[in-house]
Amino acid sequence: MFRLIKQQGKARRGEYITPHGVVQTPVFMNVGTQGAIKGALSAADLERIGTQIELSNTYHLHLRPGDEVVRQLGGLHRMMTWNGPILTDSGGFQVFSLSGLRKITEEGVTFASHIDGHRIFMGPEESMRIQANLGSDVAMAFDECVENPSPREYVKASMDRTYRWLLRCRDEQLRLRSLPDAINPGQVLWGINQGGDYEDLRVEHMQRIAELDLDGYAIGGLAVGETTETMYRIIETVEPHMPADRPRYLMGVGTPGNIIEAVARGVDFFDCVMPARNARHARLFTWSGAINLKNAKYTLDESPIDPECDCPVCRRYTRAYLHHLFKAEEMLAMRLSVMHNLYFYNQLTARIRQAIEEGTFDSFRAEYAKRLDRRI
Amino acid sequence: MFRLIKQQGKARRGEYITPHGVVQTPVFMNVGTQGAIKGALSAADLERIGTQIELSNTYHLHLRPGDEVVRQLGGLHRMMTWNGPILTDSGGFQVFSLSGLRKITEEGVTFASHIDGHRIFMGPEESMRIQANLGSDVAMAFDECVENPSPREYVKASMDRTYRWLLRCRDEQLRLRSLPDAINPGQVLWGINQGGDYEDLRVEHMQRIAELDLDGYAIGGLAVGETTETMYRIIETVEPHMPADRPRYLMGVGTPGNIIEAVARGVDFFDCVMPARNARHARLFTWSGAINLKNAKYTLDESPIDPECDCPVCRRYTRAYLHHLFKAEEMLAMRLSVMHNLYFYNQLTARIRQAIEEGTFDSFRAEYAKRLDRRI
Repeated sequence: MFRLIKQQGKARRGEYITPHGVVQTPVFMNVGTQGAIKGALSAADLERIGTQIELSNTYHLHLRPGDEVVRQLGGLHRMMTWNGPILTDSGGFQVFSLSGLRKITEEGVTFASHIDGHRIFMGPEESMRIQANLGSDVAMAFDECVENPSPREYVKASMDRTYRWLLRCRDEQLRLRSLPDAINPGQVLWGINQGGDYEDLRVEHMQRIAELDLDGYAIGGLAVGETTETMYRIIETVEPHMPADRPRYLMGVGTPGNIIEAVARGVDFFDCVMPARNARHARLFTWSGAINLKNAKYTLDESPIDPECDCPVCRRYTRAYLHHLFKAEEMLAMRLSVMHNLYFYNQLTARIRQAIEEGTFDSFRAEYAKRLDRRI
Repeated sequence: MFRLIKQQGKARRGEYITPHGVVQTPVFMNVGTQGAIKGALSAADLERIGTQIELSNTYHLHLRPGDEVVRQLGGLHRMMTWNGPILTDSGGFQVFSLSGLRKITEEGVTFASHIDGHRIFMGPEESMRIQANLGSDVAMAFDECVENPSPREYVKASMDRTYRWLLRCRDEQLRLRSLPDAINPGQVLWGINQGGDYEDLRVEHMQRIAELDLDGYAIGGLAVGETTETMYRIIETVEPHMPADRPRYLMGVGTPGNIIEAVARGVDFFDCVMPARNARHARLFTWSGAINLKNAKYTLDESPIDPECDCPVCRRYTRAYLHHLFKAEEMLAMRLSVMHNLYFYNQLTARIRQAIEEGTFDSFRAEYAKRLDRRI
């Protein structure tokens, strides 16, 4: 259940109640693809860096260890010892991006595992069953994510099928939730808006899924090839048709600047692998811009990654030490860097929330939207 | 300074005072080759797993980031934020084991970097200067470690040269310690006994280096090809000639059983990369024997790695979760496993100390020396 606390322009300060606790929004979800954060971060680490909600991937966990295994282990929360909220994606994005051969029918998608190539079928019902086994708090609807740009005819047909899949997701989740042995009977379903970069299709699809009175709505199919300007334009086009009393989630986005700009356009939830991936390549975010710790100028630099940051890494270690760890290819380099970048993102949304509360979001946006994305 | 607290048979319970704190012995030193523990463990983690003393490698830190860099960063303690005792090896072992081409003269060794092949010269003075720059609490003498078995003539000549190198190490360290800008003016030198598997050479060399009244003595050149029985025989041969009021360090050893057996023969200090390396390959120690977490039988096993263990990993995570992390090739698998295995080794020596204090070391040895090394 979503509660809107305050609004400044389109920017929204809210809170979302899940079976595993309340999420303060806007929020960045920390991505633990396979039930662990890339870079050797544990559930204990998530607690240390201010994570509110974790996101895991249905496709990956279906393959390894298998969602039936997760179910027998009491669900994902218990398996990974993360007691906060969890959102699972539907598997759709990975089916379309990771597996080479695939065949789409009305029923669903047949595809080859990216691990061993064996054929797997996944449709709306399968996706909901997997997510029920994982026991996440928010399950995402099974959709097709088309790349941008794609032919209008294909986007229209895909979008209509995604709508029919959504109805099947809703029905299957209702059935699964009511089973006596449901892992998480409070699991809810969020719908995903599609329609490529065609504004009229986006609006039509959004209006249709809004009528279903789902618990939350995502904008999908962005950050898949289009320009940033197109992405912002689509958000602006779709947003007026999203229910104001439901959370809005922009999937797979983005840079700190993207997040600030999307909040300014009415978005509440975000996720992205970029901060963790960048960290593993020594690209660290600071409140003055992004730095590359492999740069030789940090060899003797005894300041923390970001003097303005209070994360466990900045409080203890120097740029010089991290520079050495990267050069020496020590795993600890990745771990400490991922911790910093995720803390930075969690802190970024915390400061966005504070700015909206205090009515200073406009000046926050003016000060940071460009600065945080630049490389220094 | 070493103080012998209690003795049971040959087994010794003691304490060793360093400029960065007191080490309770017998002790296992946790190996942070390049200023970080392999497996993404930080200095903060070492504090969590009961580490008393950390060991780093002179050869590796000389190459990366360079000991002059470490010196400018205030020494190794400050660079890695580890405020407990540090022992550094001399670089000798790596010079002989890692670099292909090398040339030994009376002056020292010319060898090729294992990273980029560039030629490096290291002799006793260079090793002591590097270790002074690192600022460790205990510096090891520069020696040649010959493999077992080697021809008697070669071992004898090498051992005599190692003795002459030791005299140069002692003189150079005295000079370096007295410099006004010494990183760690309290750094001491430990000598290393050599002599291959020739008992008379071992004894002769031990007697000669004992006369130098050094702060500690190591037995080197073991666990380099000889049988376990030969290793134990050499320890038994050398030990009576080691000063009773100085710590004894068995370099690069070993399994839990090896450590118990060596303590029973009068050894106080140990180090080994094996527990961390085994952990990275899913081989975990328990008080019932060693297990392999990749084994399919752990897929649904919700018990901790070792029900008898109180480490941060066993208190929170299940075998099933770690099994999944290894199968999914998540870095977190390595991190959690290394934490457990090092905690196990730290706990092993803690229990050995307690047993000696209580006069029950014989029964501890009888119960665990074989059990801990077996695979279950």
